[in-house]
Amino acid sequence: MNIKFDAKGLVPAVVQDAGSGEVLMVAYMNEEALRRTLSTGEAWFYSRSRQELWHKGATSGNRIKVESVWMDCDGDTLLVTGRPLGPVCHTGARTCFFQRLDRPGGGTSQEESA
Amino acid sequence: MNIKFDAKGLVPAVVQDAGSGEVLMVAYMNEEALRRTLSTGEAWFYSRSRQELWHKGATSGNRIKVESVWMDCDGDTLLVTGRPLGPVCHTGARTCFFQRLDRPGGGTSQEESA
Repeated sequence: MNIKFDAKGLVPAVVQDAGSGEVLMVAYMNEEALRRTLSTGEAWFYSRSRQELWHKGATSGNRIKVESVWMDCDGDTLLVTGRPLGPVCHTGARTCFFQRLDRPGGGTSQEESA
Repeated sequence: MNIKFDAKGLVPAVVQDAGSGEVLMVAYMNEEALRRTLSTGEAWFYSRSRQELWHKGATSGNRIKVESVWMDCDGDTLLVTGRPLGPVCHTGARTCFFQRLDRPGGGTSQEESA
């Protein structure tokens, strides 16, 4: 693997629902989180705020069963597809992306879709 | 909008095909790129390598017609859905994510799906 981790040893990882195609969250992996994700088949990240490895859903039970991991053309971003066992967002929403900024060409609004 | 730009004034933006649901690319926006994306309905980014505003597809013609822009729960990542007018990746691939790292629970492989 020829992944370009940044100066902090991290790479952003987009998580997509393998069933619905919905983009669920973006978090960061270091080399160890990626290794564990690949070896265990569950999503691991590196928490930038807690500065520690983070087994997603270890506490809540809302783990993510990983189906595939991809890297982008220049190797500095990952895409993880998987099946979440529960809501992915800490707010309880299905996806972290529930706040709409805009309607391009129109006004600005915020709505909750979760 | 309550977006948390990082120390460099940037926020990662995931671009998803509004039709197929495919994740196409991840790039970075600064405040001006976001403003232009919202006002023009086409995707603008900030090129970290060239250190300048980047109207995606301005040269190649492969612009992205934006349908919606979302921010995540903590405001530090954007999700842009849209319709690309051509291949998104500079390699000519439909998506930048064409290199598979793994088959979780199995071996490791790389394949081209584009």
